[in-house]
Amino acid sequence: MKKLNIATIGYGFMGRTHSNAFAQVGHFFDVPYQPVLKTICARNAGRAKAFAAQWGYQSAESDWRRVVESKDIDLVDIASPNDTHAEIAIAAAKAGKMVMCEKPLGRNAAEAQAMVDAVESAGVANMVWYNYRRVPAVMLAKQIIDEGRLGKIFHYRAKFLQDWTISTDLPQGGEGLWRLDVAVAGSGVTGDLLAHCIDTAMWLNGGIAEVSAITETFIKSRKHNLTGKVEPVGIDDASLFLARFENGSLATFEATRYARGHKALYTLEINGENASIFWDLHDLHRLQYFDHRDEGRTRGWRSVHITDGDHPYMSHWWVTGLQIGYEHTFIHQAADFLTAAAEGKSAAPTFRDALATDQVTDAVLKSASTRQWTSVKSSKGGAA
Amino acid sequence: MKKLNIATIGYGFMGRTHSNAFAQVGHFFDVPYQPVLKTICARNAGRAKAFAAQWGYQSAESDWRRVVESKDIDLVDIASPNDTHAEIAIAAAKAGKMVMCEKPLGRNAAEAQAMVDAVESAGVANMVWYNYRRVPAVMLAKQIIDEGRLGKIFHYRAKFLQDWTISTDLPQGGEGLWRLDVAVAGSGVTGDLLAHCIDTAMWLNGGIAEVSAITETFIKSRKHNLTGKVEPVGIDDASLFLARFENGSLATFEATRYARGHKALYTLEINGENASIFWDLHDLHRLQYFDHRDEGRTRGWRSVHITDGDHPYMSHWWVTGLQIGYEHTFIHQAADFLTAAAEGKSAAPTFRDALATDQVTDAVLKSASTRQWTSVKSSKGGAA
Amino acid sequence: MKKLNIATIGYGFMGRTHSNAFAQVGHFFDVPYQPVLKTICARNAGRAKAFAAQWGYQSAESDWRRVVESKDIDLVDIASPNDTHAEIAIAAAKAGKMVMCEKPLGRNAAEAQAMVDAVESAGVANMVWYNYRRVPAVMLAKQIIDEGRLGKIFHYRAKFLQDWTISTDLPQGGEGLWRLDVAVAGSGVTGDLLAHCIDTAMWLNGGIAEVSAITETFIKSRKHNLTGKVEPVGIDDASLFLARFENGSLATFEATRYARGHKALYTLEINGENASIFWDLHDLHRLQYFDHRDEGRTRGWRSVHITDGDHPYMSHWWVTGLQIGYEHTFIHQAADFLTAAAEGKSAAPTFRDALATDQVTDAVLKSASTRQWTSVKSSKGGAA
Amino acid sequence: MKKLNIATIGYGFMGRTHSNAFAQVGHFFDVPYQPVLKTICARNAGRAKAFAAQWGYQSAESDWRRVVESKDIDLVDIASPNDTHAEIAIAAAKAGKMVMCEKPLGRNAAEAQAMVDAVESAGVANMVWYNYRRVPAVMLAKQIIDEGRLGKIFHYRAKFLQDWTISTDLPQGGEGLWRLDVAVAGSGVTGDLLAHCIDTAMWLNGGIAEVSAITETFIKSRKHNLTGKVEPVGIDDASLFLARFENGSLATFEATRYARGHKALYTLEINGENASIFWDLHDLHRLQYFDHRDEGRTRGWRSVHITDGDHPYMSHWWVTGLQIGYEHTFIHQAADFLTAAAEGKSAAPTFRDALATDQVTDAVLKSASTRQWTSVKSSKGGAA
Repeated sequence: MKKLNIATIGYGFMGRTHSNAFAQVGHFFDVPYQPVLKTICARNAGRAKAFAAQWGYQSAESDWRRVVESKDIDLVDIASPNDTHAEIAIAAAKAGKMVMCEKPLGRNAAEAQAMVDAVESAGVANMVWYNYRRVPAVMLAKQIIDEGRLGKIFHYRAKFLQDWTISTDLPQGGEGLWRLDVAVAGSGVTGDLLAHCIDTAMWLNGGIAEVSAITETFIKSRKHNLTGKVEPVGIDDASLFLARFENGSLATFEATRYARGHKALYTLEINGENASIFWDLHDLHRLQYFDHRDEGRTRGWRSVHITDGDHPYMSHWWVTGLQIGYEHTFIHQAADFLTAAAEGKSAAPTFRDALATDQVTDAVLKSASTRQWTSVKSSKGGAA
Repeated sequence: MKKLNIATIGYGFMGRTHSNAFAQVGHFFDVPYQPVLKTICARNAGRAKAFAAQWGYQSAESDWRRVVESKDIDLVDIASPNDTHAEIAIAAAKAGKMVMCEKPLGRNAAEAQAMVDAVESAGVANMVWYNYRRVPAVMLAKQIIDEGRLGKIFHYRAKFLQDWTISTDLPQGGEGLWRLDVAVAGSGVTGDLLAHCIDTAMWLNGGIAEVSAITETFIKSRKHNLTGKVEPVGIDDASLFLARFENGSLATFEATRYARGHKALYTLEINGENASIFWDLHDLHRLQYFDHRDEGRTRGWRSVHITDGDHPYMSHWWVTGLQIGYEHTFIHQAADFLTAAAEGKSAAPTFRDALATDQVTDAVLKSASTRQWTSVKSSKGGAA
Repeated sequence: MKKLNIATIGYGFMGRTHSNAFAQVGHFFDVPYQPVLKTICARNAGRAKAFAAQWGYQSAESDWRRVVESKDIDLVDIASPNDTHAEIAIAAAKAGKMVMCEKPLGRNAAEAQAMVDAVESAGVANMVWYNYRRVPAVMLAKQIIDEGRLGKIFHYRAKFLQDWTISTDLPQGGEGLWRLDVAVAGSGVTGDLLAHCIDTAMWLNGGIAEVSAITETFIKSRKHNLTGKVEPVGIDDASLFLARFENGSLATFEATRYARGHKALYTLEINGENASIFWDLHDLHRLQYFDHRDEGRTRGWRSVHITDGDHPYMSHWWVTGLQIGYEHTFIHQAADFLTAAAEGKSAAPTFRDALATDQVTDAVLKSASTRQWTSVKSSKGGAA
Repeated sequence: MKKLNIATIGYGFMGRTHSNAFAQVGHFFDVPYQPVLKTICARNAGRAKAFAAQWGYQSAESDWRRVVESKDIDLVDIASPNDTHAEIAIAAAKAGKMVMCEKPLGRNAAEAQAMVDAVESAGVANMVWYNYRRVPAVMLAKQIIDEGRLGKIFHYRAKFLQDWTISTDLPQGGEGLWRLDVAVAGSGVTGDLLAHCIDTAMWLNGGIAEVSAITETFIKSRKHNLTGKVEPVGIDDASLFLARFENGSLATFEATRYARGHKALYTLEINGENASIFWDLHDLHRLQYFDHRDEGRTRGWRSVHITDGDHPYMSHWWVTGLQIGYEHTFIHQAADFLTAAAEGKSAAPTFRDALATDQVTDAVLKSASTRQWTSVKSSKGGAA
């Protein structure tokens, strides 16, 4: 089988999920490439080397430019902080590499647009790791919706609730905490959490026409790990918005890191004329489905345990009744990318699809600062 | 409308649920009788009088014999402790009164048999307050089963878990605690809690052929409220049994007052070839229903919120989505009794039906003491 | 005991819940008045008479003016459609009667203000039937919040989802359907459902400072039952808004009758620094409580079954583990009103409290039409 | 790091879970050995070769004897059908190999005893793959119990419900279906499913003293895949038993493949004087915990989402809120075995521990056939 040499940039949380995806995909999926963990690249050379040993990368690098230029590399996978995405992705595309990038694509739509231009000019296969599309339950929701079972859509609601930044003692910036540093992250929960909600929402329910948003930074200053000083916090701690989709349905979206009791509660619900769907990340192996066409007396929300062979991706795993977990979503995405790439194609969500999400998050932040309903600049990528 | 003069014997927990049923039934159901709260009867004359005032009984009595003989009374409703059931019921039947009796019918099958003989000889309308049959969700389960939707039945399981007697400081005997006094109650959880499980089970799934049981008294002696002395505890604190139904299905039954965390968790489940049903008392307004004939990908347990007009009894209450509670089961039972009685009939479960339950509890207790599988002496009443 | 002669105006859904509350309150609560169902008043004399018979009202009337002027009446309870509230309440207050009114108080804040002025000028005891405050689980939430256990509040979210108007065949107007007729109802889900959410929210979390809203009428015209013609629909089918509370917390609110699968799903959640609370009407006897101060390893959302004697109101009902239902909230409210009225006081929510809710719903509707963030005109009544 | 050469016998469902465990353990745990997938062994040489390619085994073999004798192999891991366990394990032990064996250890206690004797005589590290002990939620339950938080134990209940053999068209025997062939499997659900329940139960709650059981074979004959003929079914389709533990607590156990609607629903509950625990495999990442010492008003079952760093094993995985799945239990077990083996020790459950489970399943089957309460022959291994 043809080998695909992969360089992963970044060994943090996402460096691990991506590495695991490449390590595992061939054990469970018949993919047209054999992924080879060629190079891990990260600024800290010592830790990169240790990561290489643990995951079986053949080499460790500390300068991503050398990686991007290396003729040994077929695919550059970007798992480093948000402020590095654009520069690396554009250079990798120019070097003719396939490019995968962790979400959000850019810190804003302008960065994302430049990245789209680069991969489309270069004609290289690309994909953004909005992994929650590949939760089997969410993929099943997509199938059900695409089959038209819901009928006309009236409502969509999504939220992503966490509680890990409530303590005032938590510093900002530096390894593990760059998500609190606006210069690195671009925004707070809007780009980190709402971006997931928006990507899934547009995939399931089409483009978002306009938004009215409010954001808040509950803790105004925190010690910065890089400077050692207490500095203003630039990110949004919470971000909520109302939306009207292009299909006329109404929506609420909310993300926060101040919802005590919720660790990573991403929930979505869609209500149609005939049927409704609910899903939440805390029980990701279940889909709640209500079909009004069921007989009246015995009609109810069905709790579907997504572990059967006829559920998306599940025939590749264990036996009926046995659940998979979080990291499997990345394995599924790697499988889909490798399959597409072997035919010279990108896999969804492509850079262009992900640009559409950045356009919505830009509109959300603009609406929050102007206190006005704000139209979303559409790149027509959202519904791909 | 014709009036029905009622005498209620006992003002305890069950005296209240029955009184409430008679007070409320006419507000929600078109019943052929107007129930009149004629007399409350209890040993403590002062408290009986106060109870009469609170509930609108026209008189209070302290001697049940006078009540039973009174020509003003049409219906004697027995809500007093178990050791009084047989004597009162037999006397009332002989006096030609309609008789309703709180469960269990007798302290054992022999007592129950005498009571059956009395009402059947006298030809008076009768009923036993196994109220859980009238939970709308349970009644819907009955309908679904009777329609044959489950196919061949393989399994039944029921449990009734409480935790209110774990403390060693709790005394036995006397008002409010007679359920711990074997002389009054007849048995412990077997007659108090398992009897409910058995009544529902035989109604839903037919007769029980044989049982293998184990019982335990975890706290061996308690202060007796009537004697003031520490005395041996004669009741069973926990009672578990395996059973084979006449239809070949297998079952587990369990009742205990030592299941920390459960207040009154009566659950039942029945598994058939094609469909299964689960219900629990802690969320009595829901029925869980699984139908294997649903499409595979979207098949799951349906959580049916039993608050629609096409659910049993629910058209009499509020609007869709609004739940009823515990005491409504007694109101439903009163409505069904009044309807039947107006035609000279008894309502299920009749004394004969309830005798069948006592025959099973007798077999359970016998099996526990002999450590042998024990056949149930059948009175053919269970499946009525 | 002193008698309180009650006239109930309206025999619809709310006429039944109120009548039941007065019929039952004395059976379960020691109240200082004996409520007497004196007169039922409704336009249709025949049906009023039948209703009187069923509920035990001593008389039936078809002209509310005669009722209000009658010296036999102590308390006028308004359970008729929204467009009648103001006129009746003002007349009753002027006649010196105690006044209870079904929610929303007025069709808008102007009507409500006039009603407040009337009862306050007359100095009569008053109350509005925002019954969900008296769900024991919600009352417990209030206690927990008032004890300061949640710490600083970051988030509030509430929704009220139904699905009963999705069919285009459903007409508007006339008995049972006046809630779809804007002239009678004043608004759609904003006044009907959101009003409940807002009343509870301000009671639990203080005043709402400003809102940004969107509303939609999905079905633009329906046959009108009174004219027989297809006419434009004037009500809002769905109403969503973002809010900032006076305490700085952020909120989403949503109500709709187009959420397939939800019958009357009113949910509320509040997230504080230290603890969070969630409740939903479909399982009204449970409260979800998360306390971050619990030990880390075993910390989780607690599903509290609100059926213990130390839970609000529950010592008046049955025994531990046995749930109550929807109508009990009205009984609790009647008990609290009678207790207050005997001391010459009003019970919360008073007319003034309910005016505050109308001020928020006015702001919501204004925001939706102007597409602007809108400040709430405060009457300082919300947090009472 | 020292390498450990592994030979896996069997490429079925369990061959995959074990191979995955060895492939993944080093990515997430710091283990003292580097596991090397040396040889896969299975009767079908072609499929063994394909399996080797997919999982990275260095060689494929079709004769397990050659594997056991090979000096290249350090560890023999048995994942083949039950009838092969004893012969391979005994030979491997005699050859001085470490031995891991899929559960149940033997088809009966006699086989298991011989296997225990072999590994103990040889002094080789050993372990049986009762993987559910390593579910983080179950491991947390163990910690809580061992800390004495539950107090005196009153009740234990476990069930393992499936529904995959209800169809009469399902054949017995041959690849994928040997679990229906009594000659290969030894028994039906007793050894397959109840064995899991019993292993966990004795680990959590100590030894089982005596049992009363009932079994049933609902479908009496099925086509046999190896002979092509319809043959009697020798396995038990359902197996239920009552038990008394050595600590005096009472239990119900049940396993079946005829519980429509349940795929692999393994549930366990333990009730103590002070606290209770519930867990189920269909939501394996949650633990239900009730602590009576919590304040009364806010006391309830806590749904603990077992995804925090202070939960067993979870610091090795992702971030708070993100769940793992079924196969991770094997990875945990591999990590624990490698750690123990590096010190020359076995990991629990050892062969001796697993013998105790076979002694209980033997007693269950004997009780079912004799219809008598049956004492468990104790090897003192259960509580290890």
